[in-house]
Amino acid sequence: MDKVRVAIVGAAGYAGEELLRLLSRHPYADIRVITSRQNAGKDIAEIFPRLAGTGLSFSMPDVEAIKSGCDAAFLALPHGLAHEFAEPFINAGLTVIDISADFRLRSLDQYKKYYKIDHPAPGLLSSAVYGLPERYREQIRNAKLIACPGCYVTSILLPTTAILAAKLASPEGIVACSMSGVTGAGRKVDLPYIFPECNESVRAYGVSGHRHLPEIEQELAVAAGLPSLSMNFIPHLVPTNRGIQSTVILDAAEGCTEEAVADAFAKAYGNERFVRVLPAGKLPDTKHVTLTNCCEIGFKLDSHTGKLLLFSCIDNLTKGASGQAVQDFNIRFGFPEETALV
Amino acid sequence: MDKVRVAIVGAAGYAGEELLRLLSRHPYADIRVITSRQNAGKDIAEIFPRLAGTGLSFSMPDVEAIKSGCDAAFLALPHGLAHEFAEPFINAGLTVIDISADFRLRSLDQYKKYYKIDHPAPGLLSSAVYGLPERYREQIRNAKLIACPGCYVTSILLPTTAILAAKLASPEGIVACSMSGVTGAGRKVDLPYIFPECNESVRAYGVSGHRHLPEIEQELAVAAGLPSLSMNFIPHLVPTNRGIQSTVILDAAEGCTEEAVADAFAKAYGNERFVRVLPAGKLPDTKHVTLTNCCEIGFKLDSHTGKLLLFSCIDNLTKGASGQAVQDFNIRFGFPEETALV
Amino acid sequence: MDKVRVAIVGAAGYAGEELLRLLSRHPYADIRVITSRQNAGKDIAEIFPRLAGTGLSFSMPDVEAIKSGCDAAFLALPHGLAHEFAEPFINAGLTVIDISADFRLRSLDQYKKYYKIDHPAPGLLSSAVYGLPERYREQIRNAKLIACPGCYVTSILLPTTAILAAKLASPEGIVACSMSGVTGAGRKVDLPYIFPECNESVRAYGVSGHRHLPEIEQELAVAAGLPSLSMNFIPHLVPTNRGIQSTVILDAAEGCTEEAVADAFAKAYGNERFVRVLPAGKLPDTKHVTLTNCCEIGFKLDSHTGKLLLFSCIDNLTKGASGQAVQDFNIRFGFPEETALV
Amino acid sequence: MDKVRVAIVGAAGYAGEELLRLLSRHPYADIRVITSRQNAGKDIAEIFPRLAGTGLSFSMPDVEAIKSGCDAAFLALPHGLAHEFAEPFINAGLTVIDISADFRLRSLDQYKKYYKIDHPAPGLLSSAVYGLPERYREQIRNAKLIACPGCYVTSILLPTTAILAAKLASPEGIVACSMSGVTGAGRKVDLPYIFPECNESVRAYGVSGHRHLPEIEQELAVAAGLPSLSMNFIPHLVPTNRGIQSTVILDAAEGCTEEAVADAFAKAYGNERFVRVLPAGKLPDTKHVTLTNCCEIGFKLDSHTGKLLLFSCIDNLTKGASGQAVQDFNIRFGFPEETALV
Repeated sequence: MDKVRVAIVGAAGYAGEELLRLLSRHPYADIRVITSRQNAGKDIAEIFPRLAGTGLSFSMPDVEAIKSGCDAAFLALPHGLAHEFAEPFINAGLTVIDISADFRLRSLDQYKKYYKIDHPAPGLLSSAVYGLPERYREQIRNAKLIACPGCYVTSILLPTTAILAAKLASPEGIVACSMSGVTGAGRKVDLPYIFPECNESVRAYGVSGHRHLPEIEQELAVAAGLPSLSMNFIPHLVPTNRGIQSTVILDAAEGCTEEAVADAFAKAYGNERFVRVLPAGKLPDTKHVTLTNCCEIGFKLDSHTGKLLLFSCIDNLTKGASGQAVQDFNIRFGFPEETALV
Repeated sequence: MDKVRVAIVGAAGYAGEELLRLLSRHPYADIRVITSRQNAGKDIAEIFPRLAGTGLSFSMPDVEAIKSGCDAAFLALPHGLAHEFAEPFINAGLTVIDISADFRLRSLDQYKKYYKIDHPAPGLLSSAVYGLPERYREQIRNAKLIACPGCYVTSILLPTTAILAAKLASPEGIVACSMSGVTGAGRKVDLPYIFPECNESVRAYGVSGHRHLPEIEQELAVAAGLPSLSMNFIPHLVPTNRGIQSTVILDAAEGCTEEAVADAFAKAYGNERFVRVLPAGKLPDTKHVTLTNCCEIGFKLDSHTGKLLLFSCIDNLTKGASGQAVQDFNIRFGFPEETALV
Repeated sequence: MDKVRVAIVGAAGYAGEELLRLLSRHPYADIRVITSRQNAGKDIAEIFPRLAGTGLSFSMPDVEAIKSGCDAAFLALPHGLAHEFAEPFINAGLTVIDISADFRLRSLDQYKKYYKIDHPAPGLLSSAVYGLPERYREQIRNAKLIACPGCYVTSILLPTTAILAAKLASPEGIVACSMSGVTGAGRKVDLPYIFPECNESVRAYGVSGHRHLPEIEQELAVAAGLPSLSMNFIPHLVPTNRGIQSTVILDAAEGCTEEAVADAFAKAYGNERFVRVLPAGKLPDTKHVTLTNCCEIGFKLDSHTGKLLLFSCIDNLTKGASGQAVQDFNIRFGFPEETALV
Repeated sequence: MDKVRVAIVGAAGYAGEELLRLLSRHPYADIRVITSRQNAGKDIAEIFPRLAGTGLSFSMPDVEAIKSGCDAAFLALPHGLAHEFAEPFINAGLTVIDISADFRLRSLDQYKKYYKIDHPAPGLLSSAVYGLPERYREQIRNAKLIACPGCYVTSILLPTTAILAAKLASPEGIVACSMSGVTGAGRKVDLPYIFPECNESVRAYGVSGHRHLPEIEQELAVAAGLPSLSMNFIPHLVPTNRGIQSTVILDAAEGCTEEAVADAFAKAYGNERFVRVLPAGKLPDTKHVTLTNCCEIGFKLDSHTGKLLLFSCIDNLTKGASGQAVQDFNIRFGFPEETALV
């Protein structure tokens, strides 16, 4: 197969590093350009010594050069910036796979409410495909602009959409408690993230209004066949490098049984390479999925309260970001979906 | 003041170590006996080098010797064993402060259901006082048998009972998600607790039927003025040594406001030395309470779902076990409540 | 290429898990048998959920079945047991790659002194090849029995042998201080290795007589062209899962310069895929090599004392054990040396 | 006893926090002023929630106010700044206890070489007393300016000076390998110190020219009765919050035995409250000394190389900084040396 020539724009953060780790082993990807304003001119070995073998160097982002020299571009930028690249790249015929949040929300109002700016490129929204392969695989095959889901979002959607779609729980009153490792905050140099402030610490944050909340609500509503829904998403920071554990509490529908839940998951994910559903009562562990693109799911029906409990674990940088982006890339370009992924 | 002569039965676990740490600095406690079947005869320096300065040695538990030589006994034993000591000690006039679970539950049925054995000493139950000072201080003053609350339980009761007592939230459908450090499992030598299995790992466990569940339900029902209630308690293991973070999600009562919540907390805990309530929206952190007897509480009313979110952090070995036991000891013997505690 | 049919004997420890992780992605290895006395009959998903996709199950070790059905066997057993498998397998024509310590030492006396038993199969020793590819690649190509180096040993030999061979430092008075993550102790369920005993802890151990000492001395003597030498090896346990950092202090030879050191390393490792030598003064980091088969090396000549300081980092389970075993396997069977390795 | 009125200048770093933790429990210290340019005006609860109970607030440093209102000042400032406070305070009759590096080195040349600036107040140097109580207790009793030793320095001097003073090892060719937790870098917001860069990482740094090197050399020379000596000090960063483990390798003197070493330590530290020497072959652990002012020391004579190995563990913020400062304060003002310390 011909190799796809790719650019990674914003390659010096943790999501960028993970993309580099994965794509550098991808037999059908040819990394042509990696950009970083801050590190332009530096050899990759200076920033990510473990990737020294790739021989790559960071450059300043150059839209024209990428347009003419690449077939696809991964964008790993802070929100609000992706469109500066997405727009010209799409116009030039490239496929854009965006890891930022800019093209995930359907609603401009929600975008403004949670990101505090007007959406910078509303015209692109209609062409964006939500990059969760387990729910949007067919659309991804032909997408020009793929908006990769947020990390927390992925961990909550995979267990919960299958249950809502099967009408096994109520879409009202859903609560999701998540715990994330510190790379989830990005490669951010800020006091709350230095080692002594995170180690031996557990803390909730962003408990009513985290930016991933409207994205979760949007996709759960789609799964439930509703125009919208409201739920609680409560993230916590825990002292690990990688991994998200999400615990989702739902009101079980009448007649819901653990067998029915197992069946719904089997139907949804029986053929999925990257979703592993455990038997009832077995619970997932973030360490089971570290550095893999897998989502591990457990569940338990609590008969004494009538709650259905869902549990999921992903690696926030892999299935929660760059691994899923590569999975999308593989789907889009017709490669076996698991290429370069485990 | 005269010193109280104390024994610590089962002193070689983490709760025992924490008791020793605290009592060895207590100006009115005279540690006469520390027992450990496994370590009898060993100098404390062999087991807990940091306590070498106390000059203590472990002995086999000797009921008669303790009866005649001590005024109070702390029991830090696995469940099912405490009565073997509690009964003779109480009969001999000693005050017993039990850190195990044996005298916490009012219901023999619940005890049997969750601990899988018949209660070994039902006759003692009626004399047991639940050792949560913030709710049972007066009874503790005259107690002969004090049943110290479980660690998770303490972290959930402190924020939640005040809210239920003030009728600011519904007692139905309560969900508590907790995250605990690994000392919560005791000094247990078992595969799931070795370092490489816990480090870089987050996992839920015991999600429908943890032994702390009936204890939480019992005390929340008391606070709500109900004969009983059912709720979900979902514990998670995170890679820290110490600390519990509990997130409690309740349906806010009609008309509940953040001001009303702040007032309820001020009323309940305004004079409490070991409860620190943060302003609305500020969230607690386990590292703020490590090695202290404090419970740090935060809260947030989520107007878009009508849920009231409570957050609390304690050190599981201090306020969650041995610190609270010392606080009870101070109350019972008339010492300033904060003696030997920070 | 035809696939090589392999068995992994003793596959339920951390080295076994790492072998499984690597070989399950190896395009030319066909894992036929994985054995574990303790877990015989269990599906791999129960023990190593992340490897569920391999569909393997543990069986009791069956020498006859392996002899007739496999071309190569990896042994990941405690010392003293490997010969029970190595002998019949070699006689049956299989290639044996042993991760245990049994065939590393040339001297039966040293084996007895450090392992406290008579060597169980001295007759096999002469046919064993020491499996450090960077020094014994040619012999590995034709070996029937490959003795993979110890983890600490690998981290110390790679920087130090090149320097001794180039006569840039004295072979006398060498000191190596190493720090290892806890998987280095194996999947061992023992009090010193439970999370709360390792977390927030740094400690030296085995400081005069660790079992890796005679192995280091043996190979450093070979590199120095001496019949034997004595040195100090001082291991420390640090709270990480994976990784060894070794700091080696040597007396620089007269006229030794940093340029000469860089040249010696370039000559020794310029063509090596799995050794990365940093510029003078740049220091390695265990996180740069996690889950890779690389050894990262740094150095510094301290002019004020005349000491040459060498630093190296490896992943103890990859280059320090199973990755190196796979590298040996690749060499032995003529596959590209980096197959299934990064 | 009358309370001593104290100021803490630069109280918002980790050493400042530790001083606050200790002094807030000190029965004879009255904390009058805590300064922080960055946090002036803020309540302590905002910066260090666990110290909320002290009721203190940060102010801008005000030399005149401190001069007139305090008896002693602790300085916890970066190097190069202490003299701005030390000079006027001493002139006004206050006792100054400086945790910075500015008054530790006797040699202005060494100061300039390692700190890259001319010493800002050479006139004060002659009045400075080196604040290591185990070696300079008598001078500390009457000191006006106490220069508290560096953290690494303390961990190396305590085991090594006793051995050199007893002539049990050569002062030549000493090597010290140390491992420190991340608070050792201060509360520094810099990429190498964010959680994901430190967790699962071990790395050497500052291996030939760390600022603590000349200080160690100076004091070891004093102990050995030499005008100067040269040695190697090699620090490593490990993923813990607190704790330093130092391993010191020396050439044992002829006739040195483990008994002689034990005797030398007994003589040096038999009456010391904060030095705990373990029996030969037993090794210290940083977790044994966390949050205490103790130094735990182990040793081993390696007969096969003739090296004497010393091991020590301290809490870098307590005995390595603020605890030692409080110990000095207690000595200086005639309080029992262990007041407020464990």
